[in-house]
Amino acid sequence: MGRRTAPPPISWLMQTALSRPQLISLAAGFTDNATLPVEISRRLLNRVLRSPQTGRPALQYGITAGETRLRRLTAQHLQKIDTVAATPSSQARRRGVAATHSPDRVMITGGSQQLLYMTLEALCDEGDIVLVEDPTYFVFLSILQSRGLRARGVRLERDGLDLTHLETVLQRLDKSGEIRRVKALYLISYFQNPTGVTTSFEKKRGVLKLLKKIERAAGHPIYLLEDAAYRELRFNGPDIKSALMVPGAADRVIYTGTYSKPYAPGARVGFGLLPEPLFTAVQRIKGNHDFGTANLLQQLLAGALETGLYDRHVAKIEKRYGQKARVMKQALAEHFPPNVEIWEAGGGLYFWARLPKNVSTGVKSRVFQTALKNDVLYVPGELCYAADPARKKPDHEMRLSFGSASEKNIRKGIKQLGTVLRKLV
Amino acid sequence: MGRRTAPPPISWLMQTALSRPQLISLAAGFTDNATLPVEISRRLLNRVLRSPQTGRPALQYGITAGETRLRRLTAQHLQKIDTVAATPSSQARRRGVAATHSPDRVMITGGSQQLLYMTLEALCDEGDIVLVEDPTYFVFLSILQSRGLRARGVRLERDGLDLTHLETVLQRLDKSGEIRRVKALYLISYFQNPTGVTTSFEKKRGVLKLLKKIERAAGHPIYLLEDAAYRELRFNGPDIKSALMVPGAADRVIYTGTYSKPYAPGARVGFGLLPEPLFTAVQRIKGNHDFGTANLLQQLLAGALETGLYDRHVAKIEKRYGQKARVMKQALAEHFPPNVEIWEAGGGLYFWARLPKNVSTGVKSRVFQTALKNDVLYVPGELCYAADPARKKPDHEMRLSFGSASEKNIRKGIKQLGTVLRKLV
Repeated sequence: MGRRTAPPPISWLMQTALSRPQLISLAAGFTDNATLPVEISRRLLNRVLRSPQTGRPALQYGITAGETRLRRLTAQHLQKIDTVAATPSSQARRRGVAATHSPDRVMITGGSQQLLYMTLEALCDEGDIVLVEDPTYFVFLSILQSRGLRARGVRLERDGLDLTHLETVLQRLDKSGEIRRVKALYLISYFQNPTGVTTSFEKKRGVLKLLKKIERAAGHPIYLLEDAAYRELRFNGPDIKSALMVPGAADRVIYTGTYSKPYAPGARVGFGLLPEPLFTAVQRIKGNHDFGTANLLQQLLAGALETGLYDRHVAKIEKRYGQKARVMKQALAEHFPPNVEIWEAGGGLYFWARLPKNVSTGVKSRVFQTALKNDVLYVPGELCYAADPARKKPDHEMRLSFGSASEKNIRKGIKQLGTVLRKLV
Repeated sequence: MGRRTAPPPISWLMQTALSRPQLISLAAGFTDNATLPVEISRRLLNRVLRSPQTGRPALQYGITAGETRLRRLTAQHLQKIDTVAATPSSQARRRGVAATHSPDRVMITGGSQQLLYMTLEALCDEGDIVLVEDPTYFVFLSILQSRGLRARGVRLERDGLDLTHLETVLQRLDKSGEIRRVKALYLISYFQNPTGVTTSFEKKRGVLKLLKKIERAAGHPIYLLEDAAYRELRFNGPDIKSALMVPGAADRVIYTGTYSKPYAPGARVGFGLLPEPLFTAVQRIKGNHDFGTANLLQQLLAGALETGLYDRHVAKIEKRYGQKARVMKQALAEHFPPNVEIWEAGGGLYFWARLPKNVSTGVKSRVFQTALKNDVLYVPGELCYAADPARKKPDHEMRLSFGSASEKNIRKGIKQLGTVLRKLV
């Protein structure tokens, strides 16, 4: 099975970046190095490891689904931000635990990537179909490919998934009989990778309604797999309620989140909230993968949440990313040709640039190769499109990350890229 | 696919143990709580996180195959112990890096369990066959079951795999045409789980020879998957060379090891040495699972290895487990009926007890239920046998762990269990 796993495009990009130190990478989805919580982590780990009594549980095996305290803190944290999003007042209080936000539904994993992987393992058999945004997260496409699953793209608009197109896609699949193979719709609902788009709550509600409607024809549940990896990297606009807040979502929404991006990728802890019977299935798969995520990292994150240091850290990085996004926006306005359409994000790590349709940005294109010669790297848009027979892969776009590059390099990189584009577009 | 993943027997055992605090668990494969390196880990993490320069790389994303330094240290460590095993003198020096022990072949994972999982993913398609020791590690059987793979058992003798039986099994598979589905032989070569048996180097050589001989009939390589998880928990007898030291092993042996058991399960870091093209396949799968193991944990282990604290810690726990094994041995001699055969291990965490063949030890048996009423838990032997149509599952054995129980509880637990057995056997 693994032998059909194709080489991931990102590894080539990363190798290229590593082998040319003068290269400015606007490709990597790495988080900002300068904001990584070195001192906070040292303090928290000293607290965990201060005595045998406190330290041993952190160094011993634990529970497959995750440490009880971290599951509880995660459920509370999510309930808190979903409640604030529902009633925009920082004073919003919790009104008891909603069934959708119960700690019993929380699974702790080695980053949310692992949860995406295991959810697909639990849900899909070879040949099954997963609906994805068009474009979407390319590693997710790589998982689908390696597991022999098929992807069907649903168009993305500036405020999220195109519901009319979703309806068309579902009808088409119903007509062809393939609806019986559709198991889930994968939606990166906050500051999407690669476009930066956020899907409105109303659209989430609409998605769930359309999926529910087609379930009878499918003969089984079709889940909404909501990936909220970038949710807490928000610097503009209000937060939006998760799909868990849609009435009736309890048994159809899988919500995945992570502490990697807002806290530290090197302490890789993610989480998901899953309905039964999926929770049990994923728990068994997690048992087979690794028996549960390293307790030491779980205790680190539990400490961060419990002491409030996590919230303070998130507030700090939001400012930082906001600043870097402004720098990128300014540079784009200054240096990019006016016929390049820019999708500006209110959070996350990415801007999305759309060139005129006849200008290719792919790895072999003149734009990409000339940019590389001029020491700038971006992610070609075509890598983010599923193999979908219903349309040709668009290849005139680029993902530009302001995550790991310094402000100076963002300015310089965008300027160099702009110069290339002014020549070639 | 995950929906066919059966509930793991161990989770039931663990729940039982957790819900009855007075219960003495000789079932858990946990490591000894008192030896966990709390202080060492605190010192090492303080070193990693002492400054932004040193701390940031530990909190950032890394390389999918693992941190370069840890891969190098792991290769060196393994080469060192394999060289010492080859020429039993603690002064044995390294003679350059053997091709089989190159850092380029090292993959770092979240415990060796994850590597076993990914190796099966890379190697096997549904319906394929993996040869296993009879009995074997039950979580490995659970992985096979959940992935739709078949297991065929090869008898175990006190000094390891029964080569005559292996030859018979291979011939039978050749005759039935099923040899084309055989992809690997899984061998827990040191202080095996569950029996404590160690397979001699000569037998490893013999296994590789037999596998090689049948490859023409199989039409593809058949790998020896050597699981050395317990290798460094050795308290009696000399170390034995790994299968990597068999001439010609370079392209047929997959060696998996772990720092979880000898150092800390809560800092879950494992590793493997893999031949091409498997290394590349597993690396891609690892990319899809989680992009690589948490850097913070990798840096912790790299520090432990580099400073020599790891070796000192291993020397300490070897003594401790040796002492606990002696306590269990004594208690078994004193309290168990003489017609129970005891397999004593020179390392690892387990003794293996074989009752007369007509006495069942299974979960529903009188022995198990009476033991439970008397507050002792063990792992029934039958859980460790693959579903193999060639034989009925033996169910008259038990795995007794001296890993996590205190010396007092080992004495007490074995005494209580002995009382039960004297009545029922």
